[in-house]
Amino acid sequence: MRPEGDIQMHGMMAIALDVLEQCAAFAPLIPEVRTNLVFAKPDAHTTEDVLAVDGRITVVKGMPKAAGKPQFGASSHMARLVIELTKSDPSLRAGVNFASNPALMKWLTAYCADRGWVFSAIDRSTEPEEIKDTEGASMPWKVEQAIKAANGRVPKVFYETGAVGKEPVSVLVGSDPIEVAEQMCEIARRYNAGR
Amino acid sequence: MRPEGDIQMHGMMAIALDVLEQCAAFAPLIPEVRTNLVFAKPDAHTTEDVLAVDGRITVVKGMPKAAGKPQFGASSHMARLVIELTKSDPSLRAGVNFASNPALMKWLTAYCADRGWVFSAIDRSTEPEEIKDTEGASMPWKVEQAIKAANGRVPKVFYETGAVGKEPVSVLVGSDPIEVAEQMCEIARRYNAGR
Amino acid sequence: MRPEGDIQMHGMMAIALDVLEQCAAFAPLIPEVRTNLVFAKPDAHTTEDVLAVDGRITVVKGMPKAAGKPQFGASSHMARLVIELTKSDPSLRAGVNFASNPALMKWLTAYCADRGWVFSAIDRSTEPEEIKDTEGASMPWKVEQAIKAANGRVPKVFYETGAVGKEPVSVLVGSDPIEVAEQMCEIARRYNAGR
Amino acid sequence: MRPEGDIQMHGMMAIALDVLEQCAAFAPLIPEVRTNLVFAKPDAHTTEDVLAVDGRITVVKGMPKAAGKPQFGASSHMARLVIELTKSDPSLRAGVNFASNPALMKWLTAYCADRGWVFSAIDRSTEPEEIKDTEGASMPWKVEQAIKAANGRVPKVFYETGAVGKEPVSVLVGSDPIEVAEQMCEIARRYNAGR
Repeated sequence: MRPEGDIQMHGMMAIALDVLEQCAAFAPLIPEVRTNLVFAKPDAHTTEDVLAVDGRITVVKGMPKAAGKPQFGASSHMARLVIELTKSDPSLRAGVNFASNPALMKWLTAYCADRGWVFSAIDRSTEPEEIKDTEGASMPWKVEQAIKAANGRVPKVFYETGAVGKEPVSVLVGSDPIEVAEQMCEIARRYNAGR
Repeated sequence: MRPEGDIQMHGMMAIALDVLEQCAAFAPLIPEVRTNLVFAKPDAHTTEDVLAVDGRITVVKGMPKAAGKPQFGASSHMARLVIELTKSDPSLRAGVNFASNPALMKWLTAYCADRGWVFSAIDRSTEPEEIKDTEGASMPWKVEQAIKAANGRVPKVFYETGAVGKEPVSVLVGSDPIEVAEQMCEIARRYNAGR
Repeated sequence: MRPEGDIQMHGMMAIALDVLEQCAAFAPLIPEVRTNLVFAKPDAHTTEDVLAVDGRITVVKGMPKAAGKPQFGASSHMARLVIELTKSDPSLRAGVNFASNPALMKWLTAYCADRGWVFSAIDRSTEPEEIKDTEGASMPWKVEQAIKAANGRVPKVFYETGAVGKEPVSVLVGSDPIEVAEQMCEIARRYNAGR
Repeated sequence: MRPEGDIQMHGMMAIALDVLEQCAAFAPLIPEVRTNLVFAKPDAHTTEDVLAVDGRITVVKGMPKAAGKPQFGASSHMARLVIELTKSDPSLRAGVNFASNPALMKWLTAYCADRGWVFSAIDRSTEPEEIKDTEGASMPWKVEQAIKAANGRVPKVFYETGAVGKEPVSVLVGSDPIEVAEQMCEIARRYNAGR
């Protein structure tokens, strides 16, 4: 028997991907490293507990397109990020990454303030060398920074400033991938309309 | 808000398609008209109430492959067949079609008998002309024939004998697409192994 | 080293598939058995000498879509048809199959007459039993019939009348797949516009 | 009429993508920003003159997979890089990017030396601010650096050291995409085997 939870997670991911794939405005917000949409089990401990898009979401014919299918274990970075966040707020089980640039971050600051969303930033230039050099130590440090920079609150949206060799990306988190996909597309549409 | 039922249906279809797409033995049982896997809402009245694979399931690199994504309204023939069947047995909400040939039908007769599954056939050469000529009249007639040929029981597996211009196909039905996909793959594996 | 001919054949198929995949009008002309677009080497003897679409061309989101990639050996039926035709006219190396129905065939008769194209039909009800029963004998018989019905000329477009278990399909042939795809799309557009 | 050159370019790209997509060893060398394989017309001036993979090449089910189809204008960065290189060596019309890390770069130095290939590096930390800030000025500077660091010779393989916000990547160039894909896969296989 398939666990009921797996069925519901796959169902939400399928619907969420339809939302993103039909959102033309999101295409220009897909970063160079491509986007992933991830959804963690309530008790996620490893990346195998996190549903994500195999091959990530890229841009084909100008539209967002999932390269492969949702699969547990298909993400490393975004999966570990959400696993780490759920330790501070267990309701945050889904996340999506997107582009980061000064104009977008300025706009997002106001957008999040309007909605009462906690917005935060991680300054990777302050990352201690011993953290960078220890396998698996960066993610807890980053999440801690994002929460610290938001005065102890877990952020809804946050971004990293670039580091050497690392593209700066933004992240939006939420309780499930449908909510996250709809909020992501709404941000993309409004940001594009405002320019 | 997405209906909970839609989420669960999409989740089951995603898992069921994984089962079929990883079933190498099923590839040679995909008919010329290609396979569809359909899943009807409990109260399905039109094809828009039936989730199915857009573009059907074909064979790529020797493996079954869904051409597009599951979508309500993506099937006509198989969707109407399952809608018609649910009128006689509301628990039968999912179905898959596959190839039909004398050797396979003989083998299936024994396979179904072993499992206590009702097996039936529709002889399309007996289809009255006025049925053929009336849009939408064929499907109720076919389902009626399949039940009649099984002495009033709703069949688990049935096939049509060929008619002019119509490829003969077989159909397996069940309560949900995961069950149907697993039973279909099991049939394909055992049939191939036995040859 | 890759043979220059293979490179050119792959290039023509890629461009021809773009033409078909962007031709919305062609989608309703894709038959139940799906379409294949085939391209034979000048000296084609077996299906391995014929480039075709793996998984055939189906309809996804309302548009024609190649399920897999062009590959030598990916077609059986259409490949053997073109191999047989090249015996009568070596310049005919490419072909595409499409739907057949009385309204379309009537329209095509006039369309072909306007263009000076040879149009023909194969009446499968006259196929001798010994031909049907001999593996590989049907195709030579069918091509012979199509040429005979066109008074000895090799047809540009022809169709089969349905037989038991066989969907009736039409075929358009030409010298290369780009020509064939463009002519096919032109037929689809004009036929749809005329209805 | 389609230009003969376009047909040949599409044919070579189709075959080259088959080579890469069947090269399991290449999957771990695909960088975070994903790979593109580009092929420039002999007289390429803009990205519209360069054939590239729409959506780039990502990793699905552990294998390299082109997200979309080859298309003129589908690449920006890699296209501009090859356009710039052809100014110094018109025979270099194709290129592919891949991961960069100290272990791989050390190994590549020896591999290139063995084959007599010019190997070079671009130290992005020396990039002048006025170059970074001028749209379109980075690429000529980077190519100039790569040639300068190789004592005036145009390199066959080169890599960039990381900069803030930029993933370090390596590039392999050659005369056509089939050559480049085969050399890329050979490098991947030997590098993996040697570890």
